[in-house]
Amino acid sequence: ASAQTLQEAMAAMADKVKPLGSLGHLEDIATRIASLRGRVDLPEPTPAVVVCAADHGVASQGVSAFPQAVTGLMLTAFGSGGAAVAVLSRAAGARLVVADLGVIDPPAVPSLLDRSVRPGTADSALEPAMTVAEATLALEHGIGIAHELIDDGVDLIALGEMGIGNTTTASALTAALLGCDAAATCGRGTGLDDVQVAHKVSVVDQILARHATSGVSNDPLATLASIGGLEVAALAGVVLGAAERRIPVLVDGFITGAAALVAARLAPASTDAMIAAHLSPEPGHALQLAALGLRPLLDLEMRLGEGSGAALAINLVRSAIAVLTEMATFASLGPAETSPVA
Amino acid sequence: ASAQTLQEAMAAMADKVKPLGSLGHLEDIATRIASLRGRVDLPEPTPAVVVCAADHGVASQGVSAFPQAVTGLMLTAFGSGGAAVAVLSRAAGARLVVADLGVIDPPAVPSLLDRSVRPGTADSALEPAMTVAEATLALEHGIGIAHELIDDGVDLIALGEMGIGNTTTASALTAALLGCDAAATCGRGTGLDDVQVAHKVSVVDQILARHATSGVSNDPLATLASIGGLEVAALAGVVLGAAERRIPVLVDGFITGAAALVAARLAPASTDAMIAAHLSPEPGHALQLAALGLRPLLDLEMRLGEGSGAALAINLVRSAIAVLTEMATFASLGPAETSPVA
Repeated sequence: ASAQTLQEAMAAMADKVKPLGSLGHLEDIATRIASLRGRVDLPEPTPAVVVCAADHGVASQGVSAFPQAVTGLMLTAFGSGGAAVAVLSRAAGARLVVADLGVIDPPAVPSLLDRSVRPGTADSALEPAMTVAEATLALEHGIGIAHELIDDGVDLIALGEMGIGNTTTASALTAALLGCDAAATCGRGTGLDDVQVAHKVSVVDQILARHATSGVSNDPLATLASIGGLEVAALAGVVLGAAERRIPVLVDGFITGAAALVAARLAPASTDAMIAAHLSPEPGHALQLAALGLRPLLDLEMRLGEGSGAALAINLVRSAIAVLTEMATFASLGPAETSPVA
Repeated sequence: ASAQTLQEAMAAMADKVKPLGSLGHLEDIATRIASLRGRVDLPEPTPAVVVCAADHGVASQGVSAFPQAVTGLMLTAFGSGGAAVAVLSRAAGARLVVADLGVIDPPAVPSLLDRSVRPGTADSALEPAMTVAEATLALEHGIGIAHELIDDGVDLIALGEMGIGNTTTASALTAALLGCDAAATCGRGTGLDDVQVAHKVSVVDQILARHATSGVSNDPLATLASIGGLEVAALAGVVLGAAERRIPVLVDGFITGAAALVAARLAPASTDAMIAAHLSPEPGHALQLAALGLRPLLDLEMRLGEGSGAALAINLVRSAIAVLTEMATFASLGPAETSPVA
């Protein structure tokens, strides 16, 4: 991020026909994006929502309210436009890009990007979810997707995900990266009751215990390979690819937050590109955001994932940019006595 | 609101390809609007932002950081498209309607609706702000504006306001209607320091003391006339006019919240039409929302007014409606084994 552009953007914002700071976090978002992009004259955003999907071997531990076949089924709903993230992307005027990083039984959807690394991860409670080479390949696929979109004119990327069982993966990954207990990062996912959450905690404890003996716990890439998942690796790559090109990324909820954590461990400056779209009720999400130093734009008790919160926040970012680029200044309007009385 | 349509909308939402309730408050907003309008097949909204402007005699007590001439000046910025609410209305795809209810020195802006009742209110610290007849006329102007817009196809109205000194008026009105202390309803407005806020509290105390001896404190219309302001009266009318036609209204911040309170006292069922766009840092705003039973969609520390928060929330409402009307159902997608595991 450019400190000089940040100063210029803050000075431009201070001249607008409004009391200083009176548009709150909209002003912060606009000046942060200007600083990231190194320019105050930001264009109207061209957004894309990138959903990465994959299956999780740990689903066989019975940690989700839905059967694993739903991962593939939802890809059909993404393709036909009837899923929440498809509806919300359309409402936001954003292109929706869905990539298969490792769905066991992917449907025949023409628009689906095939970036399958392997048909789902192994059960991370019993063995490493994937090899470091596989995690690296998934990460590189994510970087590639980001670069292709940016080359095509996209300058705002919203993250989304699909993968039955992936809140368990995200809980284990968050606990491993932040050094906290499984209980602090396990929530209801898409609809678990108290007994089911307790079971999820025990599965995450098992993943963490196996991972702790693997000798790689200080290496973010090896941790990612050990715990999973394939779509989390790709999403971390999307963040890295966007940050490298100084394009802002809207982080959705808990799963994409885990990917953002991985990206931040691999490249700390990538947090400059991150905007937190919303706060998920998953207890580990607030821990992720605190570690990343991000404040969410929305808090609507949304817990669907898919990228629904990130897609919903696109218009807030668009509005923040419009405030910076389209608002008039007091000087352009009239006489000097209209500035605030000291 | 229709209880039967509410049940139908909730049943429709429960069938969507997502865990029940996982889109949080978006689901509540959509089902509330369906219930209000008496139909589940809601059209894509046609929104308008209605900004009512007027001057306040109490500004002569030195309660604002800005001189009174700024009220008129901002009307120029609304007309030229450079004010925050103009930028945010454009970003939301909403028509912007600005009405002069009593600006002392209104500029020549062709698009400005002339509904001037009198050139500003009297100083409510010393005498009634206006007569009951004047308050009634301003209220009727607001009802008329709402009805004209709705007749023209508008089906979502966002409220906005402009009037130097109007946080003082809103503080006094809120304290009078809710029966709380001036200190609980007085905040920094557009940028007061602690000493200036203390002065504002003393002015509001003076307004409340004068009003208490007027013998009209249980009559909302007489209270509105006693305390002001002209734009608050008109905005209460917009709420009543929209509610009567079962059209939802996005309430902005503290000033429009005071208007919503007046509307709720005059017609309690009008709260069915209200959606709280955001939470203002003005301390009295949370009190208003609690009294109205509303939960704000956004909390971005915005304190500009003008309708900036309400305009920003339009796309959230649009997205909520799209979720209800455009999302697919599990039944439409595939086999029965994809529903949640019990």
